[in-house]
Amino acid sequence: MASMIFTDCSSSTMSRLIHLDRRNGAFLPHPCVGQLSLRTTASGRGCTLSIRSSSSPSAIVINGKAEAKKIRDDIKIEVSRMKESIGVVPGLAVILVGKNEESATYVRNKKKACESVGIKSFEVGLAEDSSEEEVLKYVSGFNDDPSVHGILVQLPLPSHMDEQKILSAVSIEKDVDGFHPLNIGRLAMRGREPLFVPCTPKGCIELLHRYNIEIKGKKAVVIGRSNIVGMPAALLLQREDATVSIIHSRTKNPEEITRQADILISAVGKPNMVRGSWIKPGAVIIDVGIKRVEGRFVGDICYAEACKVASAITPVPGGVGPMTIAMLLVNTLTSAKRIHYFQSSSDLKG
Amino acid sequence: MASMIFTDCSSSTMSRLIHLDRRNGAFLPHPCVGQLSLRTTASGRGCTLSIRSSSSPSAIVINGKAEAKKIRDDIKIEVSRMKESIGVVPGLAVILVGKNEESATYVRNKKKACESVGIKSFEVGLAEDSSEEEVLKYVSGFNDDPSVHGILVQLPLPSHMDEQKILSAVSIEKDVDGFHPLNIGRLAMRGREPLFVPCTPKGCIELLHRYNIEIKGKKAVVIGRSNIVGMPAALLLQREDATVSIIHSRTKNPEEITRQADILISAVGKPNMVRGSWIKPGAVIIDVGIKRVEGRFVGDICYAEACKVASAITPVPGGVGPMTIAMLLVNTLTSAKRIHYFQSSSDLKG
Repeated sequence: MASMIFTDCSSSTMSRLIHLDRRNGAFLPHPCVGQLSLRTTASGRGCTLSIRSSSSPSAIVINGKAEAKKIRDDIKIEVSRMKESIGVVPGLAVILVGKNEESATYVRNKKKACESVGIKSFEVGLAEDSSEEEVLKYVSGFNDDPSVHGILVQLPLPSHMDEQKILSAVSIEKDVDGFHPLNIGRLAMRGREPLFVPCTPKGCIELLHRYNIEIKGKKAVVIGRSNIVGMPAALLLQREDATVSIIHSRTKNPEEITRQADILISAVGKPNMVRGSWIKPGAVIIDVGIKRVEGRFVGDICYAEACKVASAITPVPGGVGPMTIAMLLVNTLTSAKRIHYFQSSSDLKG
Repeated sequence: MASMIFTDCSSSTMSRLIHLDRRNGAFLPHPCVGQLSLRTTASGRGCTLSIRSSSSPSAIVINGKAEAKKIRDDIKIEVSRMKESIGVVPGLAVILVGKNEESATYVRNKKKACESVGIKSFEVGLAEDSSEEEVLKYVSGFNDDPSVHGILVQLPLPSHMDEQKILSAVSIEKDVDGFHPLNIGRLAMRGREPLFVPCTPKGCIELLHRYNIEIKGKKAVVIGRSNIVGMPAALLLQREDATVSIIHSRTKNPEEITRQADILISAVGKPNMVRGSWIKPGAVIIDVGIKRVEGRFVGDICYAEACKVASAITPVPGGVGPMTIAMLLVNTLTSAKRIHYFQSSSDLKG
């Protein structure tokens, strides 16, 4: 199931799609999105939003696009401050192997996002039939390059390559994707701190924080257990003292479990899988699933139904997607600061 | 909460206590234990035991002591086969710092268990006021010593030492405790294999396997989220396709969640915390909690009540405790085999 998740949904595509009229159709999200600009006036750091216990006629839309923009603006200021203070420009290296069109789009968007905030981007494009050794050579080169503070190997890699070996070769100090097993191990362990947290789940939690949604003591359910979203999202929720359950393809009657969730994160990639009847009235819904259906992006959550039951929900697109790239920029900046002992401003912490 | 768990309950103490008459008293386990020898005739690899969906008047007792003995017997044969074939004797090094009486007992029992199966044990006892550097020096020495295949730093360490730093210094190839964050990371990740799994949770799952209790698709609830039991137990259950929920000190109304569990693992150290009313009829209960109350060992589960509701249950003592040391021996043997490329016999796989 997890193979269907597109955690990398590009912000530019989102901005194009966010204004589209998307009505009806079995696999299409419903008009709740039309309320985006109106409802999200309650968003941002200043507001308070508690999980409502009663049913809600129309959920607050969690505007990931707007929050991601605020984060990018903060990063831009911080990158500039760093450059002026110590003459260092954060650098992100991306290694892309093969001609996967989606991957190429993601890499292009990451590059654009870097440029927009002043982070220097390094890009290596290798042929599909490159050897594992070639990729490892570039990883090693970037590990040693002092102008590179983050290294990202775009997944999926061609099937003849050992993904585990390549990801583990990335220096843990530059693992801005947070996929190194040492970072995941630290994320799982109490009293340990990962150097980086994977971008998409980090973006999910950041949205909850930015909307002042309480996590501690809440029942959280994560649908999907992928290494890149579901599993680290569950670990993050647990670190914040939620009581976490993880649903996957072997779970019987998943709706019985989702109905108990105060916070529901879905990262499966099955359009409209989660119906309104699966959702506890007043729950907060974070929809990571994104799939193109008939030319439009659709999430895991049946949006029109969920809007009537949940207290808050992320739209697809314009919810978690833009946060993923924003978190990648945060991780890159954090890495550069750590490597150069440059202090964070109080507004922006990795 | 988790600080109260004694995962290291010595098998010798257990064998002394298992025949004691333990009746009544608010914090004492109840007479179900008296049926131990009778009920456990159904145990072992050959039997089949499915989770019963209806209530059960008296649960099958999962006899960890007997299973651990079988495992130790298998290890003894395998150690001997290895010695005869390639002249290698597996070696386990234990580092004990300070004079904590319980730790000293654990270390003594580990040493005895090693000797009983032919594993060579190396022991270092350091004074409470030793420096971190001294401990690290011994870790490093054992890392380099080809006759040592497993290194165990007995916890807790004195408060002036950085536990994280010391545990991370143990070579991942000799981390028979499985506490290295790299091993935990691999345990958490799909498609990755840890070199070692922590002994107590591994023992819990081994008991489920040996009693042919199905895990896949079942609802499993773990109480406690410690690095040494709760968290890795949850990860193991998830690897076996259970739908896992983790309960901890911040969970509201935990009994609502435990009541849904087909498999319940408790690792908290609060005597008799889990009442019969917390348990789903027919559930399988693994009780890791063990605490001395008025001179006797008591688990997390109110045993007398649980026996009437569960379909199977581990006693305390004599359940998970003996399995912990057995798993440590398995991990040490596995390590020696891996280092010396010695093939496993089909009966005993790490």
